[in-house]
Amino acid sequence: MKRILIIGIGAGNPDHLTLQAVKAIAAADVFFILDKGEAKHDLVQLRQDLVDAHARAPYRLVEARDPDRDRTTPAYAGAVEDWRSRRADIYERLVRDELGDGETGAFLVWGDPSLYDSTLAIVEEVLGRGTVRFEYDVVPGISSVSALAARHRTSLTQVARPLHITTGRRLSEEGPGESDDIVVMLDARHAFASLPDADGFEIYWGAYLGTPDEILVAGPVEEVAGRIRDVRAEARERKGWIMDTYLLRRAPHAERPGSPS
Amino acid sequence: MKRILIIGIGAGNPDHLTLQAVKAIAAADVFFILDKGEAKHDLVQLRQDLVDAHARAPYRLVEARDPDRDRTTPAYAGAVEDWRSRRADIYERLVRDELGDGETGAFLVWGDPSLYDSTLAIVEEVLGRGTVRFEYDVVPGISSVSALAARHRTSLTQVARPLHITTGRRLSEEGPGESDDIVVMLDARHAFASLPDADGFEIYWGAYLGTPDEILVAGPVEEVAGRIRDVRAEARERKGWIMDTYLLRRAPHAERPGSPS
Repeated sequence: MKRILIIGIGAGNPDHLTLQAVKAIAAADVFFILDKGEAKHDLVQLRQDLVDAHARAPYRLVEARDPDRDRTTPAYAGAVEDWRSRRADIYERLVRDELGDGETGAFLVWGDPSLYDSTLAIVEEVLGRGTVRFEYDVVPGISSVSALAARHRTSLTQVARPLHITTGRRLSEEGPGESDDIVVMLDARHAFASLPDADGFEIYWGAYLGTPDEILVAGPVEEVAGRIRDVRAEARERKGWIMDTYLLRRAPHAERPGSPS
Repeated sequence: MKRILIIGIGAGNPDHLTLQAVKAIAAADVFFILDKGEAKHDLVQLRQDLVDAHARAPYRLVEARDPDRDRTTPAYAGAVEDWRSRRADIYERLVRDELGDGETGAFLVWGDPSLYDSTLAIVEEVLGRGTVRFEYDVVPGISSVSALAARHRTSLTQVARPLHITTGRRLSEEGPGESDDIVVMLDARHAFASLPDADGFEIYWGAYLGTPDEILVAGPVEEVAGRIRDVRAEARERKGWIMDTYLLRRAPHAERPGSPS
């Protein structure tokens, strides 16, 4: 039987790796590296460093080019499905051709594999095709959300209150609703800056969390939104890519829509 | 200056510890252990094992009795505030009397300090009192939510969809609303079993995650709710305590309230 490990490697700090992940890396015979191209080269290097530090020699490293996703279509979910299917083709080939019976292959996933990552769904799709058989396990990792909260030394949740995790696109389209605490991921469009009731929110923003390039900004949205836009644009220009996330927290005095006035 | 480290130690598996947490434990001179009493003795032992495995000798271990929280009052948030204030009295005394200048003290927190844990708020309250000065840092940990998803090998999020994290009490009172993916924590009352549209949801439930006692149950709520109740009651009776959490996922065919029919 072939064995696959989907390993969460944390948000960018090499020390986010858990002991479980260290052991999983040491148990792997083959590492499958999906390269998104030059732009995110330093992420590829960081991942390579983790393998160098913890893998048991001899190991094999198999690289493949991640297919491009169509970012121009408004049919976001459909484009992601198509992209996922093309990635499944690649994963299927890797597991079939590059992993021997009795061997263990590893996919290293930034953050936590359970939060806005497609690896699990792709592996399930490959299994469902029935063309290649394998067992697999998942190793949880420190998500960028946990890393963000730790660096800002803030809790994500308030006493007995819920937490909503959503995307920048949805926040733009749906607004904050009744949520008081909202984590926003995958926001390329500064959704925080165009909240209808932006003056009621504090923001805790972070980019390149856990890496030497980490940037943190916190404060009332109306005061720091411009600074975050500037800092974000400058960093993205300089590095060629950016990964950021943030927590919005309704200020205690702010009114929710529909609350009695 | 005194220094405090608030260290997330993961959901119960000793190997959930990150390398950052291992280093933080090794950097501590004093560990502050708040004991909740006999009932959760095996959690205390697990934490002790982590200290034994990773602390740098000589270290001091200072134990204190966690004050009881009033669980009978319907004013939940108020009771938690009062409890937090009494805990702050204890933390203040510990940091003032048991930690020397230039020393590092550590609080070990189950899961991730940013998710339904009061340590950060208590430390901020102590700082705000101004009676004792210290610096502090937070080390993120593997939350029980990440551990749950990993053990069930499921993603918490679906493509471009939000995730709602809430409490059992709130789910009981407010229902699932429009959320398709809901993580429920702190549920002592089987809120999943009395969902108005329970037949529309799948549940991924886990107790004692990451420990040898781990129990996992997954399936349509209407099929497995009774089994979870039974398993939960039996385990709680046998061990004297239980910590569990679950993901509710609306089945693809299920209709949200208010959706066109």
